[in-house]
Parts: sequence; structure tokens; C-alpha cells
Amino acid sequence: MNKLTVIKVGGKIVEEEESLQRLLNDFAAIEGPKVLVHGGGRSATKIAAQLGIESQMVNGRRITDAEMLKVVMMVYGGLVNKNIVAGLQARGVNAVGLTGADMNVILSEKRPVKDIDYGFVGDVKQVDGKRLAELLQAGIIPVMAPLTHDGKGNILNTNADTIAGETAKGLAPYFDVTLIYCFEKKGVLRDEADDDSVIPAINRQQFAELVEQGVIQGGMIPKLENAFQAIDAGVKEVVITAANAISGEQGTKIR
Amino acid sequence: MNKLTVIKVGGKIVEEEESLQRLLNDFAAIEGPKVLVHGGGRSATKIAAQLGIESQMVNGRRITDAEMLKVVMMVYGGLVNKNIVAGLQARGVNAVGLTGADMNVILSEKRPVKDIDYGFVGDVKQVDGKRLAELLQAGIIPVMAPLTHDGKGNILNTNADTIAGETAKGLAPYFDVTLIYCFEKKGVLRDEADDDSVIPAINRQQFAELVEQGVIQGGMIPKLENAFQAIDAGVKEVVITAANAISGEQGTKIR
Repeated sequence: MNKLTVIKVGGKIVEEEESLQRLLNDFAAIEGPKVLVHGGGRSATKIAAQLGIESQMVNGRRITDAEMLKVVMMVYGGLVNKNIVAGLQARGVNAVGLTGADMNVILSEKRPVKDIDYGFVGDVKQVDGKRLAELLQAGIIPVMAPLTHDGKGNILNTNADTIAGETAKGLAPYFDVTLIYCFEKKGVLRDEADDDSVIPAINRQQFAELVEQGVIQGGMIPKLENAFQAIDAGVKEVVITAANAISGEQGTKIR
Repeated sequence: MNKLTVIKVGGKIVEEEESLQRLLNDFAAIEGPKVLVHGGGRSATKIAAQLGIESQMVNGRRITDAEMLKVVMMVYGGLVNKNIVAGLQARGVNAVGLTGADMNVILSEKRPVKDIDYGFVGDVKQVDGKRLAELLQAGIIPVMAPLTHDGKGNILNTNADTIAGETAKGLAPYFDVTLIYCFEKKGVLRDEADDDSVIPAINRQQFAELVEQGVIQGGMIPKLENAFQAIDAGVKEVVITAANAISGEQGTKIR
């Protein structure tokens, strides 16, 4: 099978002109089929504030009421996505910007209200990997915004890490998928204070040991659990690395 | 050749919930391949005002400085476009939202500054009719926002009537294209004061006569000139009609 690279970049990288231009250059240089998944939370918060809408976050997730949904549709689906697409076209990459609603590539369901009402937030139900594979085989490069739809006419806000993971899984039957999560650090660190203490590779047993030893903690635990889940679902390799190393040669490899 | 319907609807129709739902129902009911081109100017003006950005119009065209470009990218590319795409998906139409940058379907060039600096406004250079035809043949329905790109990384604001006309022309080698411009009135009226005085068909000679007689005047003249231009470029029929009659059976037919 052909190799495919799925890259997830956070809002900070795509929202600042200098880091965006570097990312676009690096992404354009990657050989073969590839998918870019982007965030945009900082811009959403900024535009929301300018519109007099307060951003409410719970456990790092955005509460998305009807007004905030409009903001994320504008910022993720319009401003950030189209800026990236135009930037890639300028570099000869035939990109197409997609939300989950476009070509019905990611169907989700509105998160049920338990303790917290997240509002118009979607949990992924189904990725149309076949459709995405057909686009890739036609030389088209998907640029995916963190938005899905419920099939009933509503756009839903969906975490970009989740979009990247589910997209990688959905494409695993068609490609040897490497999923790269870009991160502020160079990878998973053995010593939080030492940026060069990157752990080069982690398997499931080592993960359990590192958690027990307290080396891996906090937000990195769910990130790595997601990574192992992707591996279980057929993704070849997950890499956690810095945005300036999206070739996947560096960082922490999860296998 | 297969018949194709290209429909252009203005901002007013897609921005109000009731008329949008009716349009989506009507559009979903159209048989065969089809393309929807939408505006969104009223929402752009509203959001811009909320962000403290003043809308400046010259001859009905929006002056698009860097800040206004962000607004139209958000509103046309994100809010309005994705709302339509999700609404069509709910009706079983496999829509994809596109700007000209997506898959490089419409390349434009920034309008040169003569008397007026329109800013980030694009005049269409090239439509990739082949790519659009391939999508349509795969059962995918393009929903086109009035945005193009210059191939140098910039999104440009482009009039929706122009997008519709150029798209119809670009698809003429692949389909028998009917281009329908939705309008507040039922068609071209013989008597401005009588909504039922629709002229059923106009050819070029009749157009010249009607202009001479003063029956056709003002903004309708460039609209009809565009229509004849589309016919000259191979479009089969252009219809000017009301939004609730997008089957193309009524209104004024230009051949």
C-alpha cells in the first residue's frame, strides 16, 4: 500500500503568519498523499470576543452554543481553512478545504448532555475513508477543519485531534498511514524541564511503565491513549513531534 | 449531453431561515446534476458592523480591504456555505462547499486599480470546468461561495453573479447548461409596477428594442448582457426568475 501522512496542527501554528508560512512550506515538501487537519481555537476566541461572545471552556473543550457555533463555522470553516488552502495552492498543492459536511466525509452526533451541556459539539460516528481515498488518488489534498455534521442539517464543533485520529483510522484500509500530531515540544519528554529529553519511541508496555513512574502525566496521557487506539485500528505509526519537524523523522514514535 | 442546472441565489434568500429552507427543498428536488452559487452580502455587512468594520460599496460592489477580506472569507466561505452544505446533506444531496481556491476551480486576478481601488477583489481568469464536471459525474454537487484565489496565496472576493456565469460557461463543454439567476421579481418585467408582467423570452434583437423603448433599464441591462455573453459561450439557456421558481419553468428565458 502507498504511504499516507496525516498531520494535525494546532491553532497557534496556523494563526500566526510566520509559523503558517513555514508549515505550508514543510507540508508542501512532504512526498506522496497527505492530509492536513487544523485547529483555530485562538482565532475563534478572539473573533468571539470582538463580537461580544464569551468563550467558555470545560476540560479544554469549548462550550458551543448557537452563537459560538456561528463563530467556529466562520473561523474554522472560512478564515483559517481557506487561508491554508490558498497558501497550499500557491505552492502547487491541489488542496481542498473540507468540513465533515462536505461530501459527507465525517458524520457525527451531538454529544448527549450528562453533567455538562457542550452544546453543538459532535462525537464522530463515521468517516468516509473511501471518498477521502478517492480524492487522494486523484491528487487532491484534503485540508480538514474541526467541524463535522449530524446529517440533520447541523454543523457540529469537533476537536481537531479527534478529527485527525478518526481520519487516519478511516484511511488505514487504503494506505499505510503515519499520523503526526504537532505539538509545542519536540515530543514526549523524559524530563519536562529538558526540551531535548525526547523519548524516541514508546510501545504500550513502556507507556504503562512511564505512567507508573510519573514520567508521562497530565494531558499527555489521553493524547497517547488516542495514539495507541489509532494503532489498534490499523494506523501504522503515530508521531508526536514539533511543528517544524512534520517529516515525522524526529519526535516520539508510537507503534 | 446531460442537462445541468446552475442556480445563483442572492444573499437575502440564503440568509433568512424560512427562505433558505424552501430553497434547499426546491434545489434538492431538481433532477440531475446541478450547481448552487450563493451570495451573502447582507450577513457580511452585519458581521462587519459587529466587528466595527464599515462596509463601503461602489456601484453595488464591496470595497474589500484586508479586514473586510477576513469578514467575507468567514461569512461566505464558512457560515453561509457550510450552512447550505449541511442543509443539503440532510436532504440527501451530496454537496461540497467550494471557493475558487478549493481544487483550484476558479483562478482570478486582483482587479487593477483605476479610478477605484476595490482591494482584494478578483476578476475571473480561468474556471476548471473539467474538475467540476468530474465531481458532478461522481454525484457530488458543488455549492460555490463568491470567493476565488489568485494562485499566489490570496483569496479574492468575486461577485456571485460572475461566479455563476463563469461556472456555467466552464461547464458548457460537458453539459447542456441552464443558468438560473434568482431574483426578487418573477422575471424581467414589461411594467416595473406590475409583478405579473413577466416577459417570457428575450432574444438579442428584442433586448436591443426593449432597451431602446426604455422597458429594460438600470441594473437589468448588465444582468442581461451577462446572460447573452453566457449564451455566446455555449450556455444553452439563461433564466431570470424568482427564488421560488428555480425549476426554470417560469421567469424570463434568454436564448
